[in-house]
Amino acid sequence: MPSSYGDIDPEVFRTHGKQIVDWIADYLSHPERYPVLSRVGPGEVRAKLPPAPPSQPETLDAILADFQQIILPGITHWNHPAFFGYFSITGSMPGILGELLTAGLNVNAMLWRTSPAATELEEIVLGWLRQMVGLPEAFEGVITDTASVSSLLAVTAAREALGLKIREEGLAGRPEVPRLRMYCSEQAHSSIEKAGIILGLGRAGVRQIPVDAEFRMQADGLADAIAEDRRAGWRPFCVVATVGTTSTTSIDPVPAIADICARENLWLHVDGAYGGNLAVVPEFRYVLASCERADSIVINPHKWLFTPIDFSAFYVRQPEVLKRAFSLLPEYLRTAEGDAGAVKNYMDYGVQLGRRFRALKFWMVLRAYGAEGIAARLREHVRLAQWFAARVDASRNFERMAPTPMSTVCFRANPAGSSQPGGDLDQLNEALINAVNATGRAFLSHTKLNDRFTLRLAIGNLRTTEQHVAQTWELLQAELSRLIGQ
Amino acid sequence: MPSSYGDIDPEVFRTHGKQIVDWIADYLSHPERYPVLSRVGPGEVRAKLPPAPPSQPETLDAILADFQQIILPGITHWNHPAFFGYFSITGSMPGILGELLTAGLNVNAMLWRTSPAATELEEIVLGWLRQMVGLPEAFEGVITDTASVSSLLAVTAAREALGLKIREEGLAGRPEVPRLRMYCSEQAHSSIEKAGIILGLGRAGVRQIPVDAEFRMQADGLADAIAEDRRAGWRPFCVVATVGTTSTTSIDPVPAIADICARENLWLHVDGAYGGNLAVVPEFRYVLASCERADSIVINPHKWLFTPIDFSAFYVRQPEVLKRAFSLLPEYLRTAEGDAGAVKNYMDYGVQLGRRFRALKFWMVLRAYGAEGIAARLREHVRLAQWFAARVDASRNFERMAPTPMSTVCFRANPAGSSQPGGDLDQLNEALINAVNATGRAFLSHTKLNDRFTLRLAIGNLRTTEQHVAQTWELLQAELSRLIGQ
Repeated sequence: MPSSYGDIDPEVFRTHGKQIVDWIADYLSHPERYPVLSRVGPGEVRAKLPPAPPSQPETLDAILADFQQIILPGITHWNHPAFFGYFSITGSMPGILGELLTAGLNVNAMLWRTSPAATELEEIVLGWLRQMVGLPEAFEGVITDTASVSSLLAVTAAREALGLKIREEGLAGRPEVPRLRMYCSEQAHSSIEKAGIILGLGRAGVRQIPVDAEFRMQADGLADAIAEDRRAGWRPFCVVATVGTTSTTSIDPVPAIADICARENLWLHVDGAYGGNLAVVPEFRYVLASCERADSIVINPHKWLFTPIDFSAFYVRQPEVLKRAFSLLPEYLRTAEGDAGAVKNYMDYGVQLGRRFRALKFWMVLRAYGAEGIAARLREHVRLAQWFAARVDASRNFERMAPTPMSTVCFRANPAGSSQPGGDLDQLNEALINAVNATGRAFLSHTKLNDRFTLRLAIGNLRTTEQHVAQTWELLQAELSRLIGQ
Repeated sequence: MPSSYGDIDPEVFRTHGKQIVDWIADYLSHPERYPVLSRVGPGEVRAKLPPAPPSQPETLDAILADFQQIILPGITHWNHPAFFGYFSITGSMPGILGELLTAGLNVNAMLWRTSPAATELEEIVLGWLRQMVGLPEAFEGVITDTASVSSLLAVTAAREALGLKIREEGLAGRPEVPRLRMYCSEQAHSSIEKAGIILGLGRAGVRQIPVDAEFRMQADGLADAIAEDRRAGWRPFCVVATVGTTSTTSIDPVPAIADICARENLWLHVDGAYGGNLAVVPEFRYVLASCERADSIVINPHKWLFTPIDFSAFYVRQPEVLKRAFSLLPEYLRTAEGDAGAVKNYMDYGVQLGRRFRALKFWMVLRAYGAEGIAARLREHVRLAQWFAARVDASRNFERMAPTPMSTVCFRANPAGSSQPGGDLDQLNEALINAVNATGRAFLSHTKLNDRFTLRLAIGNLRTTEQHVAQTWELLQAELSRLIGQ
């Protein structure tokens, strides 16, 4: 008999927990039953929910009925095999079970003693991933929630490594502290610029280097920018190279960039949030070429290693610098084993004190598939993308807008025989993507490349097969025909 | 028949998912079967795990057997009813089911369109909590992972509100930008100082104001410090008041602090990560007195509202300032509905682009208990703490070290008849807490107050009853007797 101050009846949890497990099993067996992109309009879900909180308890039957009737229609189905937007991801079944256990245990992995297994499993799985992508042992890791935070850690560590006492004295009003500048390409993720804003460098402190025709940072341009900035009184301190940019999955020339960083004594951070994962496939390990020379690197298993969000792996070659940048030890968090240096307290290595036990789900994913099983799946995703790219290339009505080094295809419609000016093509492609997404049978997102509206087809879901890619290709052609009246 | 490139067999998921649900139901029915504090030594868990990743798939039977045999002994049981360390928390059963659904859906709540229900449910539950704690409608919210991040958002917005173009131009090398200073009490959480470090203010940019005998910020001291700093050329810009400090749950005098902030034109942020939750109890709503005058406030439902970590609610009165501080809109994240201002895209309001669908679990918790049910549970936690505090006060061998305004008791042993000097008392109390924690029957953490080693008993778990508190009181007395040989 549960106390009136206790949790709900465990038997109710048991019954509904099993119902939810069944529902997820059914859902993930047929996510294509739902339209990919939710069809609700702005405010529609909100209007169905009471604006004031319930004062009395409601049954889980009632709550789960509302989940089905109100929440589910407002979901965009990232699990749908024809979800090709942004980066397509999978929260795989072993990972979901890991999240369930993590929620059940509800430990805070801030200190070793607040669950030694959470800390040590974190060390283990970060070691496993490090080996899988071929990074040397010198890299030590910490799990964060997102690449936004991982890259923030990287740039904070880079700032700390300057030895300018910024942690103690700050940046402003100190004539001895020059204006700091970091570098990334025009194609780098917005989180890099955001890190610059947060850290007090300002957007001006983040210089974007032009890219080549394949959307890779121009190493010469980087060297020139650094030289120019030094002459103008800036203090260059950090370069962020991207392995797998968000728009096109282009790979910055890390070997040349690492040379420049070595020569100029700059911190090299590699944003491999998406693309770094591909290095688990032996024949694609080259995507991380020279990244062993980086000072830090982020790889997000929640992007392409079938781990439910959130899970970002951040590696750093000088963990003591990261710790120096972030560690604060109030008395209430002191422990004997921490003071003795016998254990790692992960709270010392980042922004957040509170930390979920994220290692568990990733451990379950890696074991359930095995490194070779995971590599086989990524290899298949790349194959599917190449299959689609080949169809685009062979088509008279579509064209590719960028190389396809990974599993994301950038393309647009450019119908043969039509001589539409650029702006009209942009409108046509925007109409095309909206038409496709409105069918509910596939979802693509877009970008702009050389100022031209570009469709992206990103493959990364375990449930995506060649059939789904082929059907989407048919759909694109059919919708285009309809739009241009052929 | 699952594809060799697909997920695991849904039937395997079904079977093991239900086993895990059963295991969690059993576990949460009797978490006291386990020692509270894990008994493993440093490296013990790690030594049992293979240092290299598995190349081939393993069965869930094997993985879950290792969970039981290797991971579980390394868990410190935050679910144990006698876990009284740090802030005692509960990942309640409805919240766990919410996490399970969130993992199953695996949506990214970055944009409205990437799941409209995730955005709109976030708006709804933040509205519910706002009403439950009595904050006015002017406060708009965003869910973050932790208070560390929420307070970072607050101080970033405060910095942006200065209008010094710091977002664009940064802090360094700009004579027109003075050294900025923020204020909190000596008892404020380390995350406030960490925000100062990250934002480029430096530790020197965070001035800690002395507290009174009850560990509350001295408002006069704050006013004096601001005046002194202005004379010395600092630019004061932000004050962080704490409602429920980490060591003692003291409540800073927000009414007086708000007066100072209004007069001095400073951003007022309230760190109510723990204590703000208590305002859901009508007769304790006064803990947020004058907080309606704050510019921002953080309340963490994962601390005291039975929601599995992580879930932090951040409210701000000028959401447009927060958005101005953080928003970056790359082309690949543009949407028609966003450009039209018809929807809220939560990615615009914080550090992280990737965002879990956290609203779901909180919605399930609030509905499963109802606002009155939740208030009743918090009221009971306060009653239990007062019960324990009264025992301490009545004891000849223990003494209270701070007032107990919420559900955390600060106390120490100070045996009658012994005239031990302060240092010896520190040693005695450290020995006492270690002895108690080593029994596995209760877990307490410590702090230092006025430089004296202080034990903390924090109550916040749904499974904690008067019996557990009484048993822990007996245990403390028994271990003390053993230590002092009486």
